[in-house]
Amino acid sequence: MQYSPCKGDISKLEVELHTTVLEVGPRDGLQNEDRVLPPDDRIAFIARCVDAGVRRIEAVSFVNPKRVPQMAGAEEVMAGVPRRDGVSYSGLVLNRRGLDRALAAGVDEINVAVPASDTFCVRNQGCTTSEMLDAWDGIAATAADAGVPIGMTIATAFGCPFEGDTPPAQVAELARRAAGAGAFEIAVADTIGVGVPSEVCELSRRVREAAPGTPLRFHFHNTRNTGYANALAALDEGAATLDASTGGFGGCPFAPAATGNIATEDLLYALHRSGVETGVDMERVAETGTWLAGLLGTPAPALLGRAGPF
Amino acid sequence: MQYSPCKGDISKLEVELHTTVLEVGPRDGLQNEDRVLPPDDRIAFIARCVDAGVRRIEAVSFVNPKRVPQMAGAEEVMAGVPRRDGVSYSGLVLNRRGLDRALAAGVDEINVAVPASDTFCVRNQGCTTSEMLDAWDGIAATAADAGVPIGMTIATAFGCPFEGDTPPAQVAELARRAAGAGAFEIAVADTIGVGVPSEVCELSRRVREAAPGTPLRFHFHNTRNTGYANALAALDEGAATLDASTGGFGGCPFAPAATGNIATEDLLYALHRSGVETGVDMERVAETGTWLAGLLGTPAPALLGRAGPF
Repeated sequence: MQYSPCKGDISKLEVELHTTVLEVGPRDGLQNEDRVLPPDDRIAFIARCVDAGVRRIEAVSFVNPKRVPQMAGAEEVMAGVPRRDGVSYSGLVLNRRGLDRALAAGVDEINVAVPASDTFCVRNQGCTTSEMLDAWDGIAATAADAGVPIGMTIATAFGCPFEGDTPPAQVAELARRAAGAGAFEIAVADTIGVGVPSEVCELSRRVREAAPGTPLRFHFHNTRNTGYANALAALDEGAATLDASTGGFGGCPFAPAATGNIATEDLLYALHRSGVETGVDMERVAETGTWLAGLLGTPAPALLGRAGPF
Repeated sequence: MQYSPCKGDISKLEVELHTTVLEVGPRDGLQNEDRVLPPDDRIAFIARCVDAGVRRIEAVSFVNPKRVPQMAGAEEVMAGVPRRDGVSYSGLVLNRRGLDRALAAGVDEINVAVPASDTFCVRNQGCTTSEMLDAWDGIAATAADAGVPIGMTIATAFGCPFEGDTPPAQVAELARRAAGAGAFEIAVADTIGVGVPSEVCELSRRVREAAPGTPLRFHFHNTRNTGYANALAALDEGAATLDASTGGFGGCPFAPAATGNIATEDLLYALHRSGVETGVDMERVAETGTWLAGLLGTPAPALLGRAGPF
């Protein structure tokens, strides 16, 4: 059942609406922060998310710790996370070396980011989009052999700081390649926070045409205050999963002053008040946002912790 | 033509979409700030808005300057604003005394705020909602005799810090009273920033049923990060006008830590990228937000000034 804000009287809703929130704070939320959190703090953060009811968590990134010191010790983090029935831990992977580490560390899902913008791909990942897609095919085959579900995140799907607007056809082509290699899920990411709901609708339709039947996930940043509107639009388009980061931390190395991912607690507020269930305790997430702000020594961009629930 | 994010391919839109943005920064944006701006600064702020292309501005509030020192000198402000063809200045009025001052000061429109929540009305305006409605009838008749358009803003239409959720039937009843006394416009205000898009849709329909043919305006605060999603939902429901405050300043005296009104520059970003024209120069508004933050000595909640345009 889709969320559809304007198609009925909410007081008369009898169907049960549900969506899954994927917590990306331990990865995307922390990877651009000045203060580097050690594995123990990241394990504590993840445990708090699980206690609050989160069931999908992007826990780690298997990238070069010299390039991204915030993500060092991914193996240590994975060794320390609480293992509970129904809780799935994802690891971000950009190449074969990362894949080998992810499989050895025992992640439940693998997420490969492929930027739709070639320039962004070169600057962020050191190879062209075409080279990244070739790597993707091999990574996906190996993950399949290992029996680990693998999904693709199409990064810079809305726009790129170097190339401007991303043509939707490029996003569709990446979705086709993702599905062709057996992706269990395709994520559409507004990496630099430039999109608006009408684009969410268009990309959602293009990706569904290119990869029929593959569940959709969306990833939004609130860089220009459009992130929450985009998340609700994605839900309206039938997205199965929405990414969010506790406290609203995160950002993009190419937009240093920008606000981060949409905040998990603020997304939960909008979802729950819209009658969409998530199984996650909003107030516990908000407390974790405040706790995390203390660890990072910087205020959380999330608003719920400041305003209080209603 | 309505804005409708999910009903077409934006690249194929051929109709022209337009909406009016009403700048409420000089009134709602400033009335809760610790630093009191003198009339000359407020006139300069208003002149910057006009230069950026804004055509409707809530310039002043005719309330007791002892209670709201930020709004002292309303007459001085009105005497100093730039008078240009097509630019309309509104003044907020809560009683007969305020109406007399507004008419004498030469406002182009009068806006009367009537809270749907009785407790909020008593705490904020010193009378019950019922007493306020009786006053409204007299104020509207006098304004009509003077030939000045008068509209009603239904405050706390979504929720109240004291009474909780506002029953939509109360909002509809206020809309009926507004239309009955000849309101040229009805505004639905989420004074404390608790609403979500599904509620915007429901209230919009209730108000249109209660007051058929009267143009709708919506007023959102981004207290819990739902303000921009609400604004786009209102547009989708055919709202003619959206309120916003340059820099995103403003707030509610009963939610002191909360973020303010939706920011004009961030709303313009979402509208323009959605293909909705406003006639307002987004970058000039963003510059004014930064300028205003300097005057107020506090960072602007708006994000566009930080992230930059795209």
